[in-house]
Amino acid sequence: MSKATKATPLRGGIDLGGTKIEAIVVDDANKVLGSARHPTPTSGGPEDVARAMAAAVREAAQAAGTATEALAGVGVGSPGSVDAQAGTVASARNLPGWDGSFALGAELGRTLGTSVAVGNDVQVAITAEFELGAAKQYSSLLGLFWGTGVGGGLILDGKPWHGRGGAGEIGHMVIHRGGRRCPCGNEGCVEAYAGRAAMEAHARHEIEHGRKSDLIKIMERKGRERFTSAVWATAIEDGDELATELIDDAVKALGAGAASAVNLLDLEAVVIGGGLGVRFGDDYVERIRKAMHEHLFPGHKMPAVRLVSLGDLGGALGAALLVADGAV
Amino acid sequence: MSKATKATPLRGGIDLGGTKIEAIVVDDANKVLGSARHPTPTSGGPEDVARAMAAAVREAAQAAGTATEALAGVGVGSPGSVDAQAGTVASARNLPGWDGSFALGAELGRTLGTSVAVGNDVQVAITAEFELGAAKQYSSLLGLFWGTGVGGGLILDGKPWHGRGGAGEIGHMVIHRGGRRCPCGNEGCVEAYAGRAAMEAHARHEIEHGRKSDLIKIMERKGRERFTSAVWATAIEDGDELATELIDDAVKALGAGAASAVNLLDLEAVVIGGGLGVRFGDDYVERIRKAMHEHLFPGHKMPAVRLVSLGDLGGALGAALLVADGAV
Repeated sequence: MSKATKATPLRGGIDLGGTKIEAIVVDDANKVLGSARHPTPTSGGPEDVARAMAAAVREAAQAAGTATEALAGVGVGSPGSVDAQAGTVASARNLPGWDGSFALGAELGRTLGTSVAVGNDVQVAITAEFELGAAKQYSSLLGLFWGTGVGGGLILDGKPWHGRGGAGEIGHMVIHRGGRRCPCGNEGCVEAYAGRAAMEAHARHEIEHGRKSDLIKIMERKGRERFTSAVWATAIEDGDELATELIDDAVKALGAGAASAVNLLDLEAVVIGGGLGVRFGDDYVERIRKAMHEHLFPGHKMPAVRLVSLGDLGGALGAALLVADGAV
Repeated sequence: MSKATKATPLRGGIDLGGTKIEAIVVDDANKVLGSARHPTPTSGGPEDVARAMAAAVREAAQAAGTATEALAGVGVGSPGSVDAQAGTVASARNLPGWDGSFALGAELGRTLGTSVAVGNDVQVAITAEFELGAAKQYSSLLGLFWGTGVGGGLILDGKPWHGRGGAGEIGHMVIHRGGRRCPCGNEGCVEAYAGRAAMEAHARHEIEHGRKSDLIKIMERKGRERFTSAVWATAIEDGDELATELIDDAVKALGAGAASAVNLLDLEAVVIGGGLGVRFGDDYVERIRKAMHEHLFPGHKMPAVRLVSLGDLGGALGAALLVADGAV
């Protein structure tokens, strides 16, 4: 049979985070040919976020020597409640003015001149780690993404588990009934202790009430408006007491949440990523593993606990896989 | 094609609980033709428990007008860590002297003169509710068994989820980090607050330290040695303050644990059973539902929450299904 010598078209991937937008363009071997990173707008609404996303993927396409219109499609990994069929995103609480539902896929598709598939940010990053990264050898795993929020995703028997569409909210497993209020409104969730936004709110509250800490000074020195992963990392290195206490508590909360998931599902592996997860790296993966061990059901084998291996690009690579998977 | 008019052989099912052994013999439509209930030995070791199990299923067979040797097989739902392939049970902490591994299937098979299949007690009861009972219309569900311990089982996409063999330990999900010590040795598990054995230990401790309660009096009046479901139920009816407080706390713990599982897996249904679950019935299912709702991730739909419909016999029916499923 004759075969046309036409190159497989490139694909785009966008990882939409609470802090930054990471866009890439990849070839059929998932090699990154171009990338761009833009800050996520902190005010405005979904339209503004979509505009920043379009700008980022345009820049990545340009770096790859192409244009978005020539891409096979663009995949998006988004926070909030994603309806993959409809291409809509609702209740993305870490993004500005995004309490309702927004047709992100359609809006981006019009702007970029190609088809757009939308998936859950953490779920696509987990799929990337499962297909290309740290979790290749496992068939059942939990992805634990420690960032602005605490997200999760499950691969069960080699396939992503979506439940009724919203599975993976490990950040909202209850680890301290009657405990700290979570940004989601409930009490005692993992994210209330480990989410960067929740930790910042708690730290600022403590500082306002007279607790000493250099977190704000470090933030200002770095020219930031939030306690980013880098701000937390510097504070820890400097031995800041409040930061150390909150991060220690976050590690314990993540460990308890991951152990709860493993006690329920008896998984082979836990893969840790997210802004803080990647920033803190292997030492903290080991600390989370120890915190998990304290809560692991005595009859269970300890699962493997690994840092994501695709790093910051995992989300965007997983988003680009949405196109390869024929979701577009 | 000619077909021999031979009746399908009957099957046996044994539900091995911390308090009682329930044995049945069923026909091919899962109709119970004979049953027997024996107390679970509280001292001795696995051999003594196996002897009591054999006596119970012999009695059930006799009531059904047959003998165990004529059964197609006997299924067993057992607590502890079950290796279905090997027919062994290990670390059944609610049973006397059962810390190690015991070849329950082989031992019973010899005594009964038929083949024996062993499965996890809660998992087989959940399978029974899924195939024959309250959960027939759902394809993903959590079984939450509130009894001596707090057990669980998952049906995902229409199939039992075993993980690496030990999945379903919802009783050991962490709901109060730094909280009460659980019989499993860890801290803050659901079972530490809701397991009947843990509640009894806590109540006795409180009573010894001067707290007023009629629990012991009620137990003695009923001629029991433990705070059985009936003892708790009577204490609640009598308005016993300590019992009410502990049961209220158990309801909240179960709600938090079930909500955590649903937040992670986005399941269609939660089915509640177990000795206390069945004894307290629909009113308490509604209370657990409300407790779950407080911790449900705001983006999620509330799953259906149902009482088991096969009642006390669910475990034994599910055990008998192990034979029908060709596991023997």
